Amino acid sequence: TELVPLTEALGRVTAAVVICPVDLPLFRNSQMDGFAVRAADVAPAPVTLPIVGEIAARPSSPSALEPGTAVRIMTGAVVPSGADAVIPVEDTKVGIGDAGSSEVTVNRGRASGEFVRERGSDLRAGDDLLPAGLRLGSRHLAVLAAAGLTTVAVRARVRVSVITTGSELVPPGSVPVLGQVFDSNGTALAAAVTGAGGVVAAQTHVTDEPSGLLAALNEPADFILTSGGISMGDYEVVREVLEPRGARVGHVAMQPGGPQATAVFGGTPVVCFPGNPVSTQLSFELFVAPLMREAAGLPPAIREGRILAVPITSVSGKRQFLRGRALAHGRVELASGPGSHLVAGLASADLLIIIPDDVTSLDAGDSVETWAL
Amino acid sequence: TELVPLTEALGRVTAAVVICPVDLPLFRNSQMDGFAVRAADVAPAPVTLPIVGEIAARPSSPSALEPGTAVRIMTGAVVPSGADAVIPVEDTKVGIGDAGSSEVTVNRGRASGEFVRERGSDLRAGDDLLPAGLRLGSRHLAVLAAAGLTTVAVRARVRVSVITTGSELVPPGSVPVLGQVFDSNGTALAAAVTGAGGVVAAQTHVTDEPSGLLAALNEPADFILTSGGISMGDYEVVREVLEPRGARVGHVAMQPGGPQATAVFGGTPVVCFPGNPVSTQLSFELFVAPLMREAAGLPPAIREGRILAVPITSVSGKRQFLRGRALAHGRVELASGPGSHLVAGLASADLLIIIPDDVTSLDAGDSVETWAL
Repeated sequence: TELVPLTEALGRVTAAVVICPVDLPLFRNSQMDGFAVRAADVAPAPVTLPIVGEIAARPSSPSALEPGTAVRIMTGAVVPSGADAVIPVEDTKVGIGDAGSSEVTVNRGRASGEFVRERGSDLRAGDDLLPAGLRLGSRHLAVLAAAGLTTVAVRARVRVSVITTGSELVPPGSVPVLGQVFDSNGTALAAAVTGAGGVVAAQTHVTDEPSGLLAALNEPADFILTSGGISMGDYEVVREVLEPRGARVGHVAMQPGGPQATAVFGGTPVVCFPGNPVSTQLSFELFVAPLMREAAGLPPAIREGRILAVPITSVSGKRQFLRGRALAHGRVELASGPGSHLVAGLASADLLIIIPDDVTSLDAGDSVETWAL
Repeated sequence: TELVPLTEALGRVTAAVVICPVDLPLFRNSQMDGFAVRAADVAPAPVTLPIVGEIAARPSSPSALEPGTAVRIMTGAVVPSGADAVIPVEDTKVGIGDAGSSEVTVNRGRASGEFVRERGSDLRAGDDLLPAGLRLGSRHLAVLAAAGLTTVAVRARVRVSVITTGSELVPPGSVPVLGQVFDSNGTALAAAVTGAGGVVAAQTHVTDEPSGLLAALNEPADFILTSGGISMGDYEVVREVLEPRGARVGHVAMQPGGPQATAVFGGTPVVCFPGNPVSTQLSFELFVAPLMREAAGLPPAIREGRILAVPITSVSGKRQFLRGRALAHGRVELASGPGSHLVAGLASADLLIIIPDDVTSLDAGDSVETWAL
């Protein structure tokens, strides 16, 4: 939990019920520009009453309204005791009486209480102002402000450390030599963490040397994401560092993204993704984003059935996540080939097409499950 | 248009097509950990070939592969010229040959091109990397980074100045005297501007004195929102200042939110809302949010038909926006009374129920149009 000012609370999630500290409205006030009267006085309308004063929507402690009189009143102004109705200005006519003083002719009576906003009629002090677990929109911040509050207790954002591994990676903006590629996973995971309601505690790239990874793993965070270094090759720095420390390294029957690992390092959970960019991004989407989104009060990604516009093939024994694009009339086409390096192909997709592990081919017109990206 | 670093580009909207400056992949590389070979050499598998070296996923300029040899290769490593296929490590067995040197037995042949990622097979230099008008998600930032880019040209956020008016308003956190209320509209409009993809250029509260409003109107912004001071009362500072400068002040046949005005001040558009909190918030939602959301690449608010769970009444000649709450099975209930001061009622709603101006009553079970908040 953390306490944040209202100016920084948009989109955050309330950590607890917020109790209203005041009555809303704070005081009995007028719903109209017009005249505050006793309803009984104007029942036999038309009725002419002397105007004994004016109450603006300003700090004021008006004296009680005497029977048989009217007071000019503005919207939001304090309704004086004694008055129990407000006559809208359009139902009145102002003139000068015999004694030269102002008077108002009320052309239509009103019931007691009409156009009067009672103190506490919106909410009473002690009532629940907002529930716990609510994602704060502008209307929620508005009622917090209306109740005089300046801060709200929200769930702390999950702090995630992002570590990309691989001696072949160079930062975007540099000039790669043959064999080097730009590190896109750091950018992708940091943005995905932010988009899922978390905050990037640290973003680090390390080579295949264990010392760099060890230093990065020591950055404080609620949990750690790594990419690369967990498959069967000879330079697998994440395995090298974490497997002796009890990491579970295995293979999920899915494509892309088969190699996966989890560990606990110094008490902090570590989720280890494979290094191919599409594998990294989909692993986050499938394994981490749903939990982070729920923690942040964000809605889950949309899952819906669609109709294939094209035939597809898949491998047996693995759940396949194909990159697709929504078409009109609930149809879907392929946006990219299946390769886990096709980072542009993934960027051109707007959903994933899920092919169950026992399905090896589907025809155009067949139904598939899709997850929005 | 503005150029922002990728770290700040999540959720922004591309201002123009982004052209890919490089081939993706940058170079021909291996899709697998295994052995790079000539496909023709291993066609009559099983075949045993001498291992002539190793290529890791690191900076490297491997020499051409001689016919009848194999080179150990890691995923992502440069495939040497001469080689046209990669044999996954699981289809091979490594041993020591007669001369004491390493050799690999390939148990299954592969077609030319298998497990080789050709340079430019994802995207070619000069291709469109991203379209114009795209709201950037993590996968789009990933492909920008993969192409070596560090910044992206995005639409500048609309800069909005928020001015709340009224001598009765005090800031949240202060101690109001009778007649004073907390300014909730400043908080509400600032958050709504942010939520609709804009940025708050200034947020000011002014009293009913024209000089303060004039100063606030001079704050630089793309457009200005005001609340309060435009109805028929005696202390209407927005009317007082802007009507002599050509403001259009009028009344929209809707409830809440009837009084509305527009103006141009020093070349800057001004949109003037009534001061009642619910009126202010709904006016923004109806008149400003749709345009701002479109400019920011955000999806429009969801509009859908629902079934009334309760009977409702409405006034003739005005379109009514009732505050409702979605129920299961496409039904909807009322969340609040119709009063334009019911700021807690609005906060407890999740949608608006639209009652056309010629409808004065509806029964439970009748269909209504709703707009998500």
